[in-house]
Amino acid sequence: MKKYNVAVVGATGLVGREMLKTLSQRNFPIDELKVIASERSEGKKIQFNDKELTVESVKEGTFAGVDIALFSAGSGVSKKVAPQVKKAGGIVIDNSNAFRMDPEAPLVVPEVNGEDLKKHQQIIANPNCSTIQMVMLLKPLAEKYGLKRLVINTYQAVSGAGKKAVDELMEQTKAYLNKEEIKNDKFKHQIAFNAIPQIDVFLENDYTKEEMKMVNETHKILHDPELPITATCVRIPVVFGHGESLNIELKNDYRIEEIKKLFNETKNVEVVDDPAQEKYPLQIDTENNDNVLVGRIRRDNSVENGVNLWLTANNLRKGAALNAVQIAEYLIENNLV
Amino acid sequence: MKKYNVAVVGATGLVGREMLKTLSQRNFPIDELKVIASERSEGKKIQFNDKELTVESVKEGTFAGVDIALFSAGSGVSKKVAPQVKKAGGIVIDNSNAFRMDPEAPLVVPEVNGEDLKKHQQIIANPNCSTIQMVMLLKPLAEKYGLKRLVINTYQAVSGAGKKAVDELMEQTKAYLNKEEIKNDKFKHQIAFNAIPQIDVFLENDYTKEEMKMVNETHKILHDPELPITATCVRIPVVFGHGESLNIELKNDYRIEEIKKLFNETKNVEVVDDPAQEKYPLQIDTENNDNVLVGRIRRDNSVENGVNLWLTANNLRKGAALNAVQIAEYLIENNLV
Repeated sequence: MKKYNVAVVGATGLVGREMLKTLSQRNFPIDELKVIASERSEGKKIQFNDKELTVESVKEGTFAGVDIALFSAGSGVSKKVAPQVKKAGGIVIDNSNAFRMDPEAPLVVPEVNGEDLKKHQQIIANPNCSTIQMVMLLKPLAEKYGLKRLVINTYQAVSGAGKKAVDELMEQTKAYLNKEEIKNDKFKHQIAFNAIPQIDVFLENDYTKEEMKMVNETHKILHDPELPITATCVRIPVVFGHGESLNIELKNDYRIEEIKKLFNETKNVEVVDDPAQEKYPLQIDTENNDNVLVGRIRRDNSVENGVNLWLTANNLRKGAALNAVQIAEYLIENNLV
Repeated sequence: MKKYNVAVVGATGLVGREMLKTLSQRNFPIDELKVIASERSEGKKIQFNDKELTVESVKEGTFAGVDIALFSAGSGVSKKVAPQVKKAGGIVIDNSNAFRMDPEAPLVVPEVNGEDLKKHQQIIANPNCSTIQMVMLLKPLAEKYGLKRLVINTYQAVSGAGKKAVDELMEQTKAYLNKEEIKNDKFKHQIAFNAIPQIDVFLENDYTKEEMKMVNETHKILHDPELPITATCVRIPVVFGHGESLNIELKNDYRIEEIKKLFNETKNVEVVDDPAQEKYPLQIDTENNDNVLVGRIRRDNSVENGVNLWLTANNLRKGAALNAVQIAEYLIENNLV
């Protein structure tokens, strides 16, 4: 089996570390592995399988011979460094927002639109975490019934904002329990025992960037640029796992049992839906589960062909690192590297 | 000024204590005040203004001479004890689910449908916390534009489930921080650093009772029994204050600035909506604020005349104790006692 030279850029971050873990767990065919981060982290050691790797920063020639570079270092780094990888002949799979709406960059969830990778031009975008888990369910519904309109509400974990955000939740929680002063730094407002109805910055239309990512990325991934979608994205004091409540109008009539069967047959989707046993998807249950969990599937009688769903997934795994690695695997399986 | 004999039933609970605090803060015209709870609490002392009151349990003649009894002791107690108050000639304002859908019992938010109190037959129902804060905003919208459809998502605090629920969140949070085993008792699942998409029991249609309360109570309060509504209710690890995301289809066209002005002119509603300054309603900001806070007001372009809102309110105050006391005040002001 052919092996590849792989680089992980942003290797010391929450998603970067998860990328390394995923590459290891899935026995990704690696020849040489480079772990890259900012100059501040240069020289740090990272364990990968039985090897100890040394963190490098980007220098002249860093990407020579690299076949695939997984990026998760923010859009500033991606915009600057991804072209260097491309120039050196490698493929970039970028977890940032830098290239997602670039018409030349495929935006891909392999189970949903892996085919789009066939037109890649060396830079491939990994969608936003909250978009990835949602389109995993929207795709089979779109194919079977057609989609008419979506109303999205999210219940997102702080780990989506990085390691500092998780630390801040923990520090604030301790301060709250000890009746000490609560300090905000990473978040504009207190996140411990509170919800913040803002993720990312505000845009001119008074939606946040996160909310418009869910609209625009879904349009691109589903190849349905006119699909009416509205989103409200909220950060809640959960560490890992995003929750989402979807209200969906389908174009055609459906039966609830049919939808459950459809999801049961969908790869990497798991139906957890047993009201009698009080079973439904929980965010804490995604910690060691790479599937998208869906439940609370019920008819919305307030509109024709309406259906409500609740879903959870691990925002760092399927929502980021795992999806990026799956893209790399798709490239290899389809001789696109 | 005339003074009244008042009883608080369930006086030792979270809402009962808040009722006493509210009666005191608003200088409610009290002659005699009885604090009533289960036999287990009998003899306990409760401070009210400069008096120390002794908790009684319900006995023969407990309600003799009582003009107004505020109940918050669960629907079992309400069903059993409220008729005794009525028989003794008093008025019950009941915070439980026992009488809300009873056609003889007005279900009232004074700012919204206080007029309904004029037909009371001694038992008056206080709506569910999540319904109260929502109809405060729906009423002015219904009058000015007409309502066509609602999609509700809630982000509800644990205090809505009582004192034991708050204690459980705190215990679980400590256990999480100390890496100890997390125990569930009041909640079926872990609530610390997690969200639970179930509030109250499941009904035959796979909605929870809480979700159907939001539908049915809103129909009754707005006198609009056919209004299409769908709800998803989620418990999040917040102590006080419910958050709600409303997606509303209006019957007629609107301008965003007009809606902001309308809410600014609505009594006991406060607009907190300044994206440039990252200001919007937060649950922690409702601790010492009796208003319903509304923000993130923005056009939903996925549907004609669509609007999205985010609102927060104190679930124990406006969502329970305060609304009950406001009902009592309305009765007095309108000579309905």
